[in-house]
Amino acid sequence: MQWLIENNNSSKEAAPDNGNRFLVGNGYMGIRGTLDEHGRDQLAAVNLAGIYDRVGDGWREPLNAPNPLHTVIYAEGKALALPEMEAVHHVQSLDFYHAILMRKTTWKTPKGAVTVESRRFADMVHPHLIGQEFTVSVDAPMEIQILAEIDTDIWEIYGPHYNKIEYSRENDNLYCLAYVQNGRDQVAVGRKCRISGQADQNDRFERGEKAGAFIYDLHMEPGKPVTLKSVCAVYTTNDEAEPLAAVQAALREEHDFEALLDTHKEAWDKIWAVGQVELEGDDMARDCINYSLYHLNCIAPRHRNDLSIPARGLSGQTYKGAVFWDSEMFILDYFLYTQPEVAKSMVRYRIDTLPGALEKAKSYGWQGAFYAWESQEGGYDGCSDYNVTDVFTKRPMRTFFRDKQVHISAAVARAVMLYTDVTGDVSLLAKGGARTVLECARFYYSLLVKRATGDRWEIHDVIGPDEYHERVNNNAYTNKMAAETCRWAIKAAEKLKESDGKAYAEFCVQTNAEEFLPKLSQTVNSIYVPEPNESGVIPQFDGYADLEDTTVQEVRNRLLDPREYWGGAYGVASHTQVIKQADVVTMLEMFHGDYSQEILRKNWDYYEPRTEHGSSLSACMYALLACRFGEPDQAYPFFMKSAQADWLGGGKQWAGLVYIGGTHPAAEGGAWKVLAEGFAGLEWTDNGPILRACLPKGWKRVAFRFCCRGKWYRAEVEPDAAEIIEL
Amino acid sequence: MQWLIENNNSSKEAAPDNGNRFLVGNGYMGIRGTLDEHGRDQLAAVNLAGIYDRVGDGWREPLNAPNPLHTVIYAEGKALALPEMEAVHHVQSLDFYHAILMRKTTWKTPKGAVTVESRRFADMVHPHLIGQEFTVSVDAPMEIQILAEIDTDIWEIYGPHYNKIEYSRENDNLYCLAYVQNGRDQVAVGRKCRISGQADQNDRFERGEKAGAFIYDLHMEPGKPVTLKSVCAVYTTNDEAEPLAAVQAALREEHDFEALLDTHKEAWDKIWAVGQVELEGDDMARDCINYSLYHLNCIAPRHRNDLSIPARGLSGQTYKGAVFWDSEMFILDYFLYTQPEVAKSMVRYRIDTLPGALEKAKSYGWQGAFYAWESQEGGYDGCSDYNVTDVFTKRPMRTFFRDKQVHISAAVARAVMLYTDVTGDVSLLAKGGARTVLECARFYYSLLVKRATGDRWEIHDVIGPDEYHERVNNNAYTNKMAAETCRWAIKAAEKLKESDGKAYAEFCVQTNAEEFLPKLSQTVNSIYVPEPNESGVIPQFDGYADLEDTTVQEVRNRLLDPREYWGGAYGVASHTQVIKQADVVTMLEMFHGDYSQEILRKNWDYYEPRTEHGSSLSACMYALLACRFGEPDQAYPFFMKSAQADWLGGGKQWAGLVYIGGTHPAAEGGAWKVLAEGFAGLEWTDNGPILRACLPKGWKRVAFRFCCRGKWYRAEVEPDAAEIIEL
Repeated sequence: MQWLIENNNSSKEAAPDNGNRFLVGNGYMGIRGTLDEHGRDQLAAVNLAGIYDRVGDGWREPLNAPNPLHTVIYAEGKALALPEMEAVHHVQSLDFYHAILMRKTTWKTPKGAVTVESRRFADMVHPHLIGQEFTVSVDAPMEIQILAEIDTDIWEIYGPHYNKIEYSRENDNLYCLAYVQNGRDQVAVGRKCRISGQADQNDRFERGEKAGAFIYDLHMEPGKPVTLKSVCAVYTTNDEAEPLAAVQAALREEHDFEALLDTHKEAWDKIWAVGQVELEGDDMARDCINYSLYHLNCIAPRHRNDLSIPARGLSGQTYKGAVFWDSEMFILDYFLYTQPEVAKSMVRYRIDTLPGALEKAKSYGWQGAFYAWESQEGGYDGCSDYNVTDVFTKRPMRTFFRDKQVHISAAVARAVMLYTDVTGDVSLLAKGGARTVLECARFYYSLLVKRATGDRWEIHDVIGPDEYHERVNNNAYTNKMAAETCRWAIKAAEKLKESDGKAYAEFCVQTNAEEFLPKLSQTVNSIYVPEPNESGVIPQFDGYADLEDTTVQEVRNRLLDPREYWGGAYGVASHTQVIKQADVVTMLEMFHGDYSQEILRKNWDYYEPRTEHGSSLSACMYALLACRFGEPDQAYPFFMKSAQADWLGGGKQWAGLVYIGGTHPAAEGGAWKVLAEGFAGLEWTDNGPILRACLPKGWKRVAFRFCCRGKWYRAEVEPDAAEIIEL
Repeated sequence: MQWLIENNNSSKEAAPDNGNRFLVGNGYMGIRGTLDEHGRDQLAAVNLAGIYDRVGDGWREPLNAPNPLHTVIYAEGKALALPEMEAVHHVQSLDFYHAILMRKTTWKTPKGAVTVESRRFADMVHPHLIGQEFTVSVDAPMEIQILAEIDTDIWEIYGPHYNKIEYSRENDNLYCLAYVQNGRDQVAVGRKCRISGQADQNDRFERGEKAGAFIYDLHMEPGKPVTLKSVCAVYTTNDEAEPLAAVQAALREEHDFEALLDTHKEAWDKIWAVGQVELEGDDMARDCINYSLYHLNCIAPRHRNDLSIPARGLSGQTYKGAVFWDSEMFILDYFLYTQPEVAKSMVRYRIDTLPGALEKAKSYGWQGAFYAWESQEGGYDGCSDYNVTDVFTKRPMRTFFRDKQVHISAAVARAVMLYTDVTGDVSLLAKGGARTVLECARFYYSLLVKRATGDRWEIHDVIGPDEYHERVNNNAYTNKMAAETCRWAIKAAEKLKESDGKAYAEFCVQTNAEEFLPKLSQTVNSIYVPEPNESGVIPQFDGYADLEDTTVQEVRNRLLDPREYWGGAYGVASHTQVIKQADVVTMLEMFHGDYSQEILRKNWDYYEPRTEHGSSLSACMYALLACRFGEPDQAYPFFMKSAQADWLGGGKQWAGLVYIGGTHPAAEGGAWKVLAEGFAGLEWTDNGPILRACLPKGWKRVAFRFCCRGKWYRAEVEPDAAEIIEL
């Protein structure tokens, strides 16, 4: 396996996509895979995890740091910069084994050819550091300038977030302190530059009105390349009270580019030692799944133990850098089985943000914990009541993601339980986990309604996973998840009682569990979960079957504008059976053991042709469910769709007038789920892990490592054999 | 009082408004007040009560008959027709005491002036007949042609409803039989023409390809006018199996225009003898209120005892000729107190359409009777799920009037109870009335939900009277009306038991009342009705107070298109506290006895500035409530707005791209309610009628007749005295 992707499209149009596909990151930051000379127009960004700001009425979004990698060369006074200045040769490549972005570009100038080669990495050992190596060579004598700056004219969606920038310099080090307009936060960035080679050189601190840059004036000769090595550092007030001092301290250390790169590579070697997938018989699938895992590892929180993963990873400010149900339902499993400490951080993030969830429930008149739909720091819900812009009127549209997508709390509860089950680590139950699950159950309890004419508990006025149908009653997924959350709460309390009597006592005082849990027990079996109809199909919600039954293509044909929103009150899909993404299918995948294979298959067959797959969360659920009823070849194209979500790039770029591009961690994590839990059939049972394997045609061997309850295993699957080897 | 309105605006733009304002009608049909020569472009129509048709997927709407009044004159071969051919003098007038439309128009021609004078009435004695008198005079000799035809090229909104027309002729009589495209119905129209005067005359049956017309060629001289008198007849298959034969029989009778006119006038004399309002001190108010009552009398069903009044009367096909809650809540009272037999017909219409209401409830999974929001024949709900057209996309918008405006059934129940109470006629209770009320209660019972965390019954996901806020929970008006409906059901059953044991036994078998009513009694006092908050204001629904608090003007300023719909999911008003019409105020008016005057006033003060009054049902409720807290001068402008709704013309013409023009019976009836029940304070109590009068400034005397429990009374109100005189 080559562990390499390449691209030689340097057009203006390709820049956003390349930014995602060639991203490097280390969990602290994601550096979009744009070129050294790129800036705001090409969506260059050093996107920071877990620090947010809100300007006026705009959306609250994560910060992009001033960009310390910005490097531009000038030949005879003219900038050699893609895409404006066309190159005669260009290739951009990513070594996704060691997480190193490379580029090589040759421009023709009147005097001769100029070639730039560079490498970049986000240090996996030192999360605040970035390394960059930038080499220039010429094939004829000429005057070259290199501009090495900390670019503060950065890409921001709802900015400007900085209202004051201070530059300073210390020997070879440039510093920049950016003051966030909220008056509280600061972002400090530094760049230590070392230039080497045979050319004459001198440096100036400023050029014109532009601060924060070194400019190297060079007389270059053929065969005498010049290399600029930069070690950059980023700190914020989230990390240190004085982030600039921290940057200065970091850069005053004698960091050698090569030495940093070596330890960075070792760190990735370790990640892959446990985290890669071996696959024989399908090189494309093998490459895509590992490329997906590369991206997950770039954004996994390791520098703190209380962060989770945003829906667009660290690929920018799209989706507000917020944590969605994607994290628990699609991303968690990979880390749970291969890097449990990352999974623990993700679960802790939710436990820590319980106060925000309690507050949110209260604000709507509910009880318990209603988690943020788009969770930012402290559990603040970044989701606006107006999350889509109407393409026709340019007005914000009232959406109900924030207030009606109540299934989010169940995803959180599930994550706590799954983490506890698979790792055997019950400590989080005592540290707020049991309380979290119970408060999620209390939330659903407070949503339950009973009709005067009925004897079952229903949940009304929600949005299920399929967001195109708003404010529906008895969404099968939501009701089932709510009922299970109630059962989990009972189970969590029992586990806590067994494992930690003191914590349990405290939990009872905090939650009044001994009064509430018996009520919950009495109620839980009367919560209505829609049953299969006479055709074996579970209606997605009350009245779904009465909607117009048409095709995805027909619905697409009705669009008047390609960017218009399919959902909402009047969307082209809203009053049809066409759905955005797996909904009943997600429910059946989650609880496949409760249904016959025939029911699983019938629902798959019914819903798949009616699904737009307009979300990157859809394909993997279809793939998983097809594995559950023993059809890996039916699953295969959906697995590939999920595994290639970022490999191929593209994808849905717009929801109304809102840009939603970026990487797709849920699809990446979903692809691993299909591979490990679908094709290999890994499942945690009370008797330990088992495999129910079913490989697609042509696959000769799948192998991966995983960890359960502190023990490491290796899954080895061949077409006719599946084995778990304890390591 | 003159009982006359006039207008000399004959422009193209004025025609639709004049059509409403100068309408004549007799309950069987409404003839729009367009001119003799007008046709489809001027919205000429002979609109028929209680007969509907639906073409393809268009809206089901009432039929307009072929127009037998169409009369055009030609001078020297050139048509003298407004608005194309401008007149030197034109006046159109309506004697609204005797319901006679008149016009006088003079055109200049190269040869000299030609004057047309005409009169028209919809016969109040013979509901199938129309009289027309058409006189031509000249001031110089010239050749004149009169085209007298049955115009079949008629105005239709969702037509064409006729797929075959047959013309025939018999002496002076023209006949036209129009086959409705549903294959079931026919509409027959006849016109008997008598021409008189000194001119030469001959008639031809056809001219060119145009059938169904007489053409009179006349050589006319000054001082020798020619008069064409027409008696027209209309029958449909709703009236007779062979409507053409019925038309022929009617026109073969020797009907004399003058004699018909005389008996027509006598009939109106009798109507006004009991139905008019005497008012001294405010001539404008006096004229407007009686003009409103004129309109009500034009559309009151008298030829059948099972019809009600559509929301736009008989002024055309707008609002689909459908019966709304307007009939029971705004129009009923006038007839109840002055022509109880008309009120009885209106109530019977609802009792007769109970099967449709039961069916509708069932179709939504509810129990009991869910009355049609836009009720057509047989209780068919003409309301579409897509009742508004988006001005930006031209797409139909999913609206919830049909399925969520559940308060309609309460209005029906109230009508049955009010009719029984005020007339003392309990016979309707036995003839389905008690069952109707009980099934309405059963409907609300089936809507009730209780939260797991609550102990009260709530009603969710409705639209209240204010249609701009869709799918709300616990709308105060709806919940209160639902609770009262439950109480009415209990009361209706008791009354029936007392008055008619046999009918009661049958009722119990039909409705299973003896099992249901005890359940209802247990429940009714736990139905949640929102209470005044600390400021004394009753929130219109859950969460109303959290909406943006802004002004009607600000909301209007946000319109991008003057025709765009303010409500729906994304309307300019939808997410603000701005409401379309009286909602809480309507509830308080209905149940003013349950609240202190202070509460009434505080809610009036809160809601009025937030009310668009975008419905003609709004102003009268504000006027009534102001009377309830003793502020007749505060009520006065709202009373005038209601009383002048059709007097002034204009009004809201568009809901999205749907034309909604026409007359406003609810405003007319509402105006009478304000006058009689507000200013004069008429109220039925168990001890008989009482007056709680409060006249506006300047009013010297108000007097009107009314009937309660079979006895006739006269209300006499002066600023300091109010008296009920038994007649």
